[in-house]
Amino acid sequence: MYRVDLNSDLGESFGRYTLGMDDRVIPLITSANVACGYHASDPMVMAKTVAMAKEAGIRVGAHPGFPDLMGFGRRNMAVTPEEAKAYVLYQLGALDGFCRSQGIRLQHVKPHGALYNMAAKDYELAKGICQAVAEFDKDLIVLALSGGQLARAAQDMGLRTALEVFADRAYEEDGTLVGRGKPGAMVTDEEEAIARVVRMVKEQRVEAVTGKDIPIHADSVCVHGDGEKALAFVQRIRQALSQEGIALCPLEELCPRLS
Amino acid sequence: MYRVDLNSDLGESFGRYTLGMDDRVIPLITSANVACGYHASDPMVMAKTVAMAKEAGIRVGAHPGFPDLMGFGRRNMAVTPEEAKAYVLYQLGALDGFCRSQGIRLQHVKPHGALYNMAAKDYELAKGICQAVAEFDKDLIVLALSGGQLARAAQDMGLRTALEVFADRAYEEDGTLVGRGKPGAMVTDEEEAIARVVRMVKEQRVEAVTGKDIPIHADSVCVHGDGEKALAFVQRIRQALSQEGIALCPLEELCPRLS
Amino acid sequence: MYRVDLNSDLGESFGRYTLGMDDRVIPLITSANVACGYHASDPMVMAKTVAMAKEAGIRVGAHPGFPDLMGFGRRNMAVTPEEAKAYVLYQLGALDGFCRSQGIRLQHVKPHGALYNMAAKDYELAKGICQAVAEFDKDLIVLALSGGQLARAAQDMGLRTALEVFADRAYEEDGTLVGRGKPGAMVTDEEEAIARVVRMVKEQRVEAVTGKDIPIHADSVCVHGDGEKALAFVQRIRQALSQEGIALCPLEELCPRLS
Amino acid sequence: MYRVDLNSDLGESFGRYTLGMDDRVIPLITSANVACGYHASDPMVMAKTVAMAKEAGIRVGAHPGFPDLMGFGRRNMAVTPEEAKAYVLYQLGALDGFCRSQGIRLQHVKPHGALYNMAAKDYELAKGICQAVAEFDKDLIVLALSGGQLARAAQDMGLRTALEVFADRAYEEDGTLVGRGKPGAMVTDEEEAIARVVRMVKEQRVEAVTGKDIPIHADSVCVHGDGEKALAFVQRIRQALSQEGIALCPLEELCPRLS
Repeated sequence: MYRVDLNSDLGESFGRYTLGMDDRVIPLITSANVACGYHASDPMVMAKTVAMAKEAGIRVGAHPGFPDLMGFGRRNMAVTPEEAKAYVLYQLGALDGFCRSQGIRLQHVKPHGALYNMAAKDYELAKGICQAVAEFDKDLIVLALSGGQLARAAQDMGLRTALEVFADRAYEEDGTLVGRGKPGAMVTDEEEAIARVVRMVKEQRVEAVTGKDIPIHADSVCVHGDGEKALAFVQRIRQALSQEGIALCPLEELCPRLS
Repeated sequence: MYRVDLNSDLGESFGRYTLGMDDRVIPLITSANVACGYHASDPMVMAKTVAMAKEAGIRVGAHPGFPDLMGFGRRNMAVTPEEAKAYVLYQLGALDGFCRSQGIRLQHVKPHGALYNMAAKDYELAKGICQAVAEFDKDLIVLALSGGQLARAAQDMGLRTALEVFADRAYEEDGTLVGRGKPGAMVTDEEEAIARVVRMVKEQRVEAVTGKDIPIHADSVCVHGDGEKALAFVQRIRQALSQEGIALCPLEELCPRLS
Repeated sequence: MYRVDLNSDLGESFGRYTLGMDDRVIPLITSANVACGYHASDPMVMAKTVAMAKEAGIRVGAHPGFPDLMGFGRRNMAVTPEEAKAYVLYQLGALDGFCRSQGIRLQHVKPHGALYNMAAKDYELAKGICQAVAEFDKDLIVLALSGGQLARAAQDMGLRTALEVFADRAYEEDGTLVGRGKPGAMVTDEEEAIARVVRMVKEQRVEAVTGKDIPIHADSVCVHGDGEKALAFVQRIRQALSQEGIALCPLEELCPRLS
Repeated sequence: MYRVDLNSDLGESFGRYTLGMDDRVIPLITSANVACGYHASDPMVMAKTVAMAKEAGIRVGAHPGFPDLMGFGRRNMAVTPEEAKAYVLYQLGALDGFCRSQGIRLQHVKPHGALYNMAAKDYELAKGICQAVAEFDKDLIVLALSGGQLARAAQDMGLRTALEVFADRAYEEDGTLVGRGKPGAMVTDEEEAIARVVRMVKEQRVEAVTGKDIPIHADSVCVHGDGEKALAFVQRIRQALSQEGIALCPLEELCPRLS
């Protein structure tokens, strides 16, 4: 039987500011990437987000980012691998405080924004992030871009690793994402996007932007809940997966425990 | 045999800024209150501070403060008990990230600055802080002002509670500190200060500012490491305690485990 | 002829976060209180907000707050008058940077949230704020709560002072606002609220919560643009004022220049 | 007669944290680059620093940096030219608030750390910074690395431009600095460093790291006040300049006013 996880970024409100429709997207996904107070969120938001995820029975992961609230963690920052490790440890621990307080266990870690993008390309930075994960909890799953350096570093370090794919993004022949600026980077047709996801899960293959068929591994599909259109698309994906006999399940059931 | 803990605030550097002489005071104390990134510190400083404490064999506690880096957490802020709880959970977790990474266990929690002062007077705020501790780890010790509301709330909630005294501060008849602005608030004579500490530990009594003898409980003495004079004073206290047959030991040996 | 200013808080978005419907409320008001990056806003938002106000021909004032982004400047902080002065100077200057860049002149200063509330009650704090204004630009208008200490301090210091009233708030006999927690604090009937505003402007009188008729001075009415209902209410106020022969005009036309 | 300016970064303390020996270096320099609250400093520090500079009769310039207090503005951040412009406008205005309050006039702008380094290499970013300066005050002097893109952008935009040289850094043949990581990047011999400065001022030439003699323009020499050794070196430079008949004078006397 085919299985896949649906993950989404949650808990990105901050103080007086509300972002996203967390209550709407939570029932549709299996794993939540919860912001940890650096690129977004604050302790009150984190407490509430973990409570919502717990109540809905979905799994909670940490979504650490750069200390750049003004830029929402989306701007590259020249941090050292040691800084990246320390920033991830800090944010992992902080989110875990709320998980412990509410009696649930952290499932995974997925870096946010520019940290995610930089770690996908920079093996040393990726290693810094993975060291934080390994030292914090060897059972945590690293959720990383399929084909990127973070996935490679996590696997090299013997960490549980889950690979993420995107419904609306095109791939290069080497399995990396086509840069957003380039022609053909986005898959704009929803039917096509969904068909690609189904094939990635069932056949573990996708057609690269060049037209060549390449292998790809999809443990999880990243979806968004920041608008009516995005939510409708998640529901269509769920329906298509169901019709194709693909069951939704959280990452921890897909990635065998190591110890 | 008499025993007491010596605690000091550590790890309050931030980025390019260095504060305190942590390497000098660490060998002199038994418990470190480590800043958690709100009133001071950052992830790199936290990693380093925990490593130094671990290497010296002293115990690590969390020193959570208000989110007021500009004011060093020394300014009262009108937060709700729920906010205080969330802020403490966040900081407890964040520091614990570094403890787990380095294989040590958090021993205690001591609020910083204005949060400490407000919690000593406001039972509801104190309860918020204690709920964070209880939900995070029931074995954590709350290190609180002798005679204050935080100590009361921690005891009411069944938490391990350690009481802190100050060598250089005068006490009211009800066991609370004489406000800094009032006459006689500070004990400026070092000999007298040390004699008071010895008596608080051995006889569990101290002379209040009014002249009346009152009962007091001293699990730990707060000392400072922010200057040559402060360090010399810590060494004098250590010498006096030793001569008086008072052994130094960390809080966890003074506060019996509950479970 | 009767005249009054309508003011509203604007430019309170931050980074990825959007707050308020600035484009909708701007055409309805005469003076904008623009956030300055402490309790809300950032340089990109400030640049955009000043540009929008300039294009609409409304006046721009500074809306400085506490350095508490997480609490949106709504929590009392125990700052000294010197700190308040420095914080206001910083924020006044920062906003003025964008005004100079776009060739317009700052009209007024209205503190935000907890700083506004504290300054209405604390004369020394209010003096600190007024010193910042006086040293920055003697022609700036202080927009303050009618009956509060900030208004008193501004007048004592010889600053141009404009008094603000609220349509939806009840007044004590001494002209101060009834605290939000107290019964009768809010005027919930819209017709009544509008009638009160008209009378405050035309007769300079209002009925206090006790039933007693008291004198009040209304240079400006504070309105909100954070929802459809709020916007509809602003339009009703505008209509009522027009029907009553009360013209809208910015503060600078109401407060004679001193020099 | 030969003339040159000596500039130094000042006012980089923050809250409880003290950095640098501003009171010691101020009497030795002619222009101060004052931090503006993004990479360092806060409103209280800015008020004090401007007051010290005013009392000593030296000129004040703005030293804007990235919004990265944790990294002291030393880490490259991928900001857009529009963001750089807005960040500089904000910080220029903020510092000017304190200058106006104390009745002095801003003389110059020198970006800090990573913003300085990036602007020296990226013409578009440099243009963003210069647009902020031009729109804020056309008489402000841009103090930029000799041979860098910021100097070029400022000159292209018709701004008053001052060129800065370093006593302790080697130059490439194109007039740019040898990267810190490369061999020969630092001039470690103090005699040699001073001789180089004197020659840069008098002959407008310097020997590049390759041995080739190149033209260079030195309006200002950057000196440091963050240690006894640094201060002693500044005094040696002052002495050498005096013996060579080179007078110290602030930038504004070196850069003719345009309007």
